[in-house]
Amino acid sequence: MTETDTLPNRAGPAPDAPPRDVADFIETAHHADLARWLKDLPRTQVWRHLAGLGPERRVRVFTNMDLDSQAELARDMAPADLAALVSGMGGDDRVDLYNRLTPEEQAQLLRDLPAEDRADISRLAAHAEGTAGAIMTSGYATLGAEMTVREAIAALRVAAPASETIYRSYILDDAARLIGSIRLHELILADEATPVAAIMDRHPVSVSVDTDQEETARMIAHYDLLALPVVDAGGRLVGIVTHDDAADAMDAETTEDFQRISTVLPFKHNMREAGIGVLYSRRIVWLALLVFGNLFSGAGIAYFEETILAYVSLVFFLPLLIDSSGNAGSQSATLMVRALATGDVVLKDWGALIGRELLVAALLGATMAIVVLPVGIARGGADVAWVVGLTMFLVVIVGSLVGMSLPFLLSRLRLDPATASGPLVTTISDAVGVIVYFSIATLVLSL
Amino acid sequence: MTETDTLPNRAGPAPDAPPRDVADFIETAHHADLARWLKDLPRTQVWRHLAGLGPERRVRVFTNMDLDSQAELARDMAPADLAALVSGMGGDDRVDLYNRLTPEEQAQLLRDLPAEDRADISRLAAHAEGTAGAIMTSGYATLGAEMTVREAIAALRVAAPASETIYRSYILDDAARLIGSIRLHELILADEATPVAAIMDRHPVSVSVDTDQEETARMIAHYDLLALPVVDAGGRLVGIVTHDDAADAMDAETTEDFQRISTVLPFKHNMREAGIGVLYSRRIVWLALLVFGNLFSGAGIAYFEETILAYVSLVFFLPLLIDSSGNAGSQSATLMVRALATGDVVLKDWGALIGRELLVAALLGATMAIVVLPVGIARGGADVAWVVGLTMFLVVIVGSLVGMSLPFLLSRLRLDPATASGPLVTTISDAVGVIVYFSIATLVLSL
Repeated sequence: MTETDTLPNRAGPAPDAPPRDVADFIETAHHADLARWLKDLPRTQVWRHLAGLGPERRVRVFTNMDLDSQAELARDMAPADLAALVSGMGGDDRVDLYNRLTPEEQAQLLRDLPAEDRADISRLAAHAEGTAGAIMTSGYATLGAEMTVREAIAALRVAAPASETIYRSYILDDAARLIGSIRLHELILADEATPVAAIMDRHPVSVSVDTDQEETARMIAHYDLLALPVVDAGGRLVGIVTHDDAADAMDAETTEDFQRISTVLPFKHNMREAGIGVLYSRRIVWLALLVFGNLFSGAGIAYFEETILAYVSLVFFLPLLIDSSGNAGSQSATLMVRALATGDVVLKDWGALIGRELLVAALLGATMAIVVLPVGIARGGADVAWVVGLTMFLVVIVGSLVGMSLPFLLSRLRLDPATASGPLVTTISDAVGVIVYFSIATLVLSL
Repeated sequence: MTETDTLPNRAGPAPDAPPRDVADFIETAHHADLARWLKDLPRTQVWRHLAGLGPERRVRVFTNMDLDSQAELARDMAPADLAALVSGMGGDDRVDLYNRLTPEEQAQLLRDLPAEDRADISRLAAHAEGTAGAIMTSGYATLGAEMTVREAIAALRVAAPASETIYRSYILDDAARLIGSIRLHELILADEATPVAAIMDRHPVSVSVDTDQEETARMIAHYDLLALPVVDAGGRLVGIVTHDDAADAMDAETTEDFQRISTVLPFKHNMREAGIGVLYSRRIVWLALLVFGNLFSGAGIAYFEETILAYVSLVFFLPLLIDSSGNAGSQSATLMVRALATGDVVLKDWGALIGRELLVAALLGATMAIVVLPVGIARGGADVAWVVGLTMFLVVIVGSLVGMSLPFLLSRLRLDPATASGPLVTTISDAVGVIVYFSIATLVLSL
């Protein structure tokens, strides 16, 4: 089968059925497609297929499988096979796998690996999750400032197999400090006798190992880089973060944000494979917590039981009012959560934005009030209509301000702004809404 | 100032104050940082600074500014200056700007441009927004299959200035059909006398001009490509989508999803700059629509007024029950919206997932019921407690199933699944919740 035949599958999920000619597919398919197809086979078969591949292709395909599958397969493999496979993997990929293994499995693996691989893994595995250090790889190419372009290109030919990219290489001083970088592009265009020092970028952008991975990814996007060098406290080059790994990290962060704003505790599993236990445990926590939040609304209602008994028609508008407040609130919260995540907005912008939010909220509240007035009149007459309209105006404003401010407050407290989820905002503005509603009612209907 | 001095700024937003030495900064800063800094200056100053730069750097900096600023500046420039600037811009960047101009401005610009640029813009501008054609660029390098590696590298030296990337070049047949691609990496490693045909990839992955941009971006990520070739119906190469443009497109789509799930109609403006009119108009539509949804809940309540008057303590639990149902629903909805967006889950998976959802929802509902039972006993005695517990169990299940299924239903209807927002799900499950609640109450409390 030609590659183009498989294109529809490749962009989408794994093919429904194995390709017409399996042997041919296994041989010719893109390693990413082969990995995706193997993922859905029984594990014994997967290893049989992998074993049949050439060592290089085997590494490629294995690396392209998700970490859950990789870890499972690793457990079935003979230690020697696993070690061989892991030696061939990219620095960052094998650390991700390594971190998925049990301490015993990790020890066993390290024993079977050549010394340098062992050192590389221990070094990379040392960095905290979510930092540049944790997603960097050691597969970068370095050049000497004194080399000529001809020598540099010759050096890259040698370095290429072990490098994730040779499109940008890094120039270090004798202390391994990063002093420059150069693109293959520039080496190709330059005269062969030119010294690298004469054409290299002497101010390469870099991050430190403990830079947040979101910030690292944003820098790669901001500067349109293929790879961003990572330096230690002493300015020594210790790794690079490639654009694709940064993008994967960013994707994971975004998925986490989606989970948080819907009060689901973050989990890494693919939604198709996530187990019942995982989903239950990640969802129940906030659902249960919010119950107590809702008791405040209940308490408010209990407090105003007299008013309710006297004007039971007020209950008709209760869901409408508290939902509208909650909806306006989740609008503001979600917009801010995303803006903070993309860096469009930063902590200090709150002051500048709260005024605009108030204006927008007032317009929204006024419109909503006008929308409900006729309903109020129809259901409970002019008095009730005024109560409902005024309440609507106020609760939409309160909801919006709470929703807009909570993400800032949370990131101020060094918590994830995405925790300012719609449901949390809804619960808060519900409690406020109930009290505002029945207080106004009690006053206006002069009970 | 050295680059490293400005690093903190670069990753974050625009510097608060102009750098200590403006002239120095303008000369040495990375073009992306200079663009970000200019963005916040009065427009007249911006153009003065731009005019002071060398033509190449001017184009780089201008291209790095957001489209709103670009369009504004374009209006202030002398037509000749604008034309010169636009001629220097990348194919995709100048089309984005072109699309922001008024028809008059577009016509004027085309008149001032050299014939080939005019043709290129008209060709690229023809593609529908959201397709590969709309984000592709014409700045790709092509090689002949018959060339030797030496000839190919020589050809790339010539093509480099006009190419977005020379790290992958494309091999076309006489009819301009894409027959292969090769990485600069491979050219560097190969023997200089080898013919390109012998080492090129004969099955390059490609997309058609009308492929959805989300799918295009997913393919670039799936195959870890720097650029993905775009072909027309005849298989002729018409452009490439570079990884960074694909990432930008994906980012925009994600931001749109965040907006939709919070019932905000999509808008492209940066949250810091978005005007009151924009925010109001994008937010009011669903807020107002959901009012009518909430009237169903109200109607339900009206229908059960007798029950409420008899057991006013039932109202205490109303916000709690309808919120819990809505919260469980937005959890399921948001998880599915994201899974559908990343491709983790596809339309046909619904059947396979609904069973798991039902189980998880039942567990959640049971837990929530247990949580509220004591409150029910405390507030209204055993009978009320049973009513509340049973209702909680049922509404959490209903909410989850609605929330989980709605995104699938919507994408089945070729609508954006993200329209299955938390608030929409909440409103639906509220109406159901009210009816379930008071029906059970009426039965159990045998009114």
